[in-house]
Amino acid sequence: MWLWYLAPGQRLGLSCGRVWLLVLLLLGCDLAREGGSVLNCPPKCVCASNIISCSKLGLGIIPTKLPRFTAILDLSHNNLTRLRADWTPARLPHLHSLLLNHNALGFISTEAFCHVPHLRYLDLSSNSIKALEEFLFSQLQELEVLLLYNNQIAQMDRSAFDDMARLQKLYLSQNQISRFPMELVKDRAKLPDLALLDLSANKIKGLPVAALKGLPAWMKNGLYLHSNPLSCDCGLYELFTHWHARQLSSVVDFREELVCSLPLAKRSVSVFTLNSQDSLNCSEFKEHMLEAYLGDTVTIDCDTKVRGAITREWVTPNNRRFPEETANSTMTVLGNGSLQIRLIRVEDMGTYTCYAVSQAFNETLYVDVMVHNFTQHGTHDTLNTAYTTLVGCILSVILVLIYLYLTPCRCCCRGNEKLAAQPEDSINSSMLSTTPNHNPEVAVRKGSLSHLAASGPMQGQNEPKWQAEPGSPLPAAAPSP
Amino acid sequence: MWLWYLAPGQRLGLSCGRVWLLVLLLLGCDLAREGGSVLNCPPKCVCASNIISCSKLGLGIIPTKLPRFTAILDLSHNNLTRLRADWTPARLPHLHSLLLNHNALGFISTEAFCHVPHLRYLDLSSNSIKALEEFLFSQLQELEVLLLYNNQIAQMDRSAFDDMARLQKLYLSQNQISRFPMELVKDRAKLPDLALLDLSANKIKGLPVAALKGLPAWMKNGLYLHSNPLSCDCGLYELFTHWHARQLSSVVDFREELVCSLPLAKRSVSVFTLNSQDSLNCSEFKEHMLEAYLGDTVTIDCDTKVRGAITREWVTPNNRRFPEETANSTMTVLGNGSLQIRLIRVEDMGTYTCYAVSQAFNETLYVDVMVHNFTQHGTHDTLNTAYTTLVGCILSVILVLIYLYLTPCRCCCRGNEKLAAQPEDSINSSMLSTTPNHNPEVAVRKGSLSHLAASGPMQGQNEPKWQAEPGSPLPAAAPSP
Repeated sequence: MWLWYLAPGQRLGLSCGRVWLLVLLLLGCDLAREGGSVLNCPPKCVCASNIISCSKLGLGIIPTKLPRFTAILDLSHNNLTRLRADWTPARLPHLHSLLLNHNALGFISTEAFCHVPHLRYLDLSSNSIKALEEFLFSQLQELEVLLLYNNQIAQMDRSAFDDMARLQKLYLSQNQISRFPMELVKDRAKLPDLALLDLSANKIKGLPVAALKGLPAWMKNGLYLHSNPLSCDCGLYELFTHWHARQLSSVVDFREELVCSLPLAKRSVSVFTLNSQDSLNCSEFKEHMLEAYLGDTVTIDCDTKVRGAITREWVTPNNRRFPEETANSTMTVLGNGSLQIRLIRVEDMGTYTCYAVSQAFNETLYVDVMVHNFTQHGTHDTLNTAYTTLVGCILSVILVLIYLYLTPCRCCCRGNEKLAAQPEDSINSSMLSTTPNHNPEVAVRKGSLSHLAASGPMQGQNEPKWQAEPGSPLPAAAPSP
Repeated sequence: MWLWYLAPGQRLGLSCGRVWLLVLLLLGCDLAREGGSVLNCPPKCVCASNIISCSKLGLGIIPTKLPRFTAILDLSHNNLTRLRADWTPARLPHLHSLLLNHNALGFISTEAFCHVPHLRYLDLSSNSIKALEEFLFSQLQELEVLLLYNNQIAQMDRSAFDDMARLQKLYLSQNQISRFPMELVKDRAKLPDLALLDLSANKIKGLPVAALKGLPAWMKNGLYLHSNPLSCDCGLYELFTHWHARQLSSVVDFREELVCSLPLAKRSVSVFTLNSQDSLNCSEFKEHMLEAYLGDTVTIDCDTKVRGAITREWVTPNNRRFPEETANSTMTVLGNGSLQIRLIRVEDMGTYTCYAVSQAFNETLYVDVMVHNFTQHGTHDTLNTAYTTLVGCILSVILVLIYLYLTPCRCCCRGNEKLAAQPEDSINSSMLSTTPNHNPEVAVRKGSLSHLAASGPMQGQNEPKWQAEPGSPLPAAAPSP
């Protein structure tokens, strides 16, 4: 039983084969070789299937006729000075690694990478590059690693690395960069995968400390800032002491190179000595804790050093495990691994532990949570609109009831007058404001309640209709006549 | 609100920080640097965070004090001659790329890679390696790419590449290899991920054609065999013409370098000219088809050029799509993407198309299926054991019935004898073998059926118990007494 397949357009394999054979014969192609020489290989280069190695050949220009199938092109240790747009006239769709390190490259065309759209690794280290133009690498949308260390880069356009959605590692060490390129780490949507940014050994004096503090730990872990002429300040001390406490590689591996210049003494000291009395006397690094107020919804982040497929498990102060225990409705592990506590109580206070486990590493994080025994807003704020409206409403009702049932003082004063007069009085009082009272004394005594006067005809004592004055504490819902 | 985390063992960060500071002060460490020099960097090398580049420094020995955090170590273009077991005294757990190309390495210790267990990329190309010892690379269980081209390798131990479960690309081009290393491609369990094996420009004369035909297309696509002094034969012609028809890179990209030596003429010709009359006059390459017989279960493989996460869709000759149409119970797409046809019919004959789609490539494969209008086995084979047993059984039953109801000739002959004798005869016949028959004539007549005789006591005419003789066509399932 035989299985044979044909690729599309190759179903006429026989005739195609014949045509090709004919072409070969017509060309008189002498194929008498013992093996070793490769027709597609540029002169002097060493070629192994899809690798073209033209390293250390003293080349001043790049060989033009590169085979279409090239996957790795090594042009390191040559004398190349310019990378023009037409360095490869033909498209190299399979090229994934381009090595141009140890040359004299000072010029790179903004269209240099038009023909190599699938490049994943680009080594431009140890050259003479002085500036990175706008959108210089924007065509390299699949690039993962970019090596630019040991150049003379002093100017970087803010858009030089735009549209590099897959860039993971960017080495800019040993250049002349004087400004921290905040655009590379700030907008995570631009370089979402960037996990290593090497800015060591440059000319950076100031750092955006507050912005750096807000970065995720996996980004800080690969943010190398050592061997820069940083200006000493206590913000710097606090930043790097915290990174060191978190055991982040960028600080732990280069702690001796993390130095700064004291402003007055004009000498460099280790950043970690800034708490000493003979330098800035910064206050000691203290472990801060997450503070919350009764009833708050608190989200505790499991801010791991390494990004990727990580399993996160939380253990609460009273040894409950999440996300295993899903019955508890006030605590949930969110999609990004954070633990959310709703309506936090004083009993929830303590140390929360996050165990982050992946194939490559394990990490344990502790977060201390303190819960204040009162709600987040002060006493004054609790007297909000709804509360005052309610109190006003109740007060109004009480006043109305007083008006209706605890009738005016007149009745009390005239308690011993003839009882026969009572029905008349009663009629008078019930018709209080419908007609002016002809008794001046009574009118004066009723003045104290005039602001409650009903303006419409009374339909009976048990069915009063109120006209609320503007600003009065009467129920707004009472129907107006 | 502040969030601060501490790594395990670092909860006493304050005191640790103090101790470290004290150590620094005690050592009198002068950290007065402006940036640029890196303490961990070996002399003359260029270092960028986790990259140590000591390329083209004329080094005769490898710098010993390499920092633990090294991820890429470039030692190319030096004068290294030996890679001893102790080239790095300390373990380098983060090293993933080691470049040793363009040196003079002639000796590599079998323990050279003990301290770099997580290496993924090893470049040993352009050296003077002559032999690969047993288990030489077996410690590199995470290695993905191994470059050994442009050496003088003449001897390779069969176990040199054992236990390299993640090896994807192995470049052995431009060496002195004379034997095709079948062990690298045969046992897929050893190097399950190997998708590129470059054996071009070596001294290989013979190829295991039959074994190579059986490899999956994604393996053949990356099996480079050009520029070898192959001996011409028609098997070679058929192999490479098929690979060319399938548009496999290993043949399409290097078709001009695929040459062989004619045995008598002692000249090299293109493999693709072997069908010409002035060479071997091999029969033309023909597209073979998958042949099947009525009722067979046929599995059609979607043998793609590239391995990986691929979506496969099949279209049958009558334009039905699978796996979309799952209602048809005779055709199923298996887990590996193959199409299985159960109980194949003549109507299933025709061209099956597999559309393989992944993020990186699309491929269309055609498979012609021919169905013969008869079952796979000849007429003789259809008389199998079950069939003959059944026939034998039916025959036996008929014979027994003949024996029981078409009573011996005696009755016919004695047709006119007294009818009263019949019950006795009936009893005699029913007790056929329980006691020897005293009538010799009857005994002789019954002899012809003696092999069917029941040996146990008969329990009744309707419940016979048979004792099957060995080899007799009686039902084996009949209970023995």
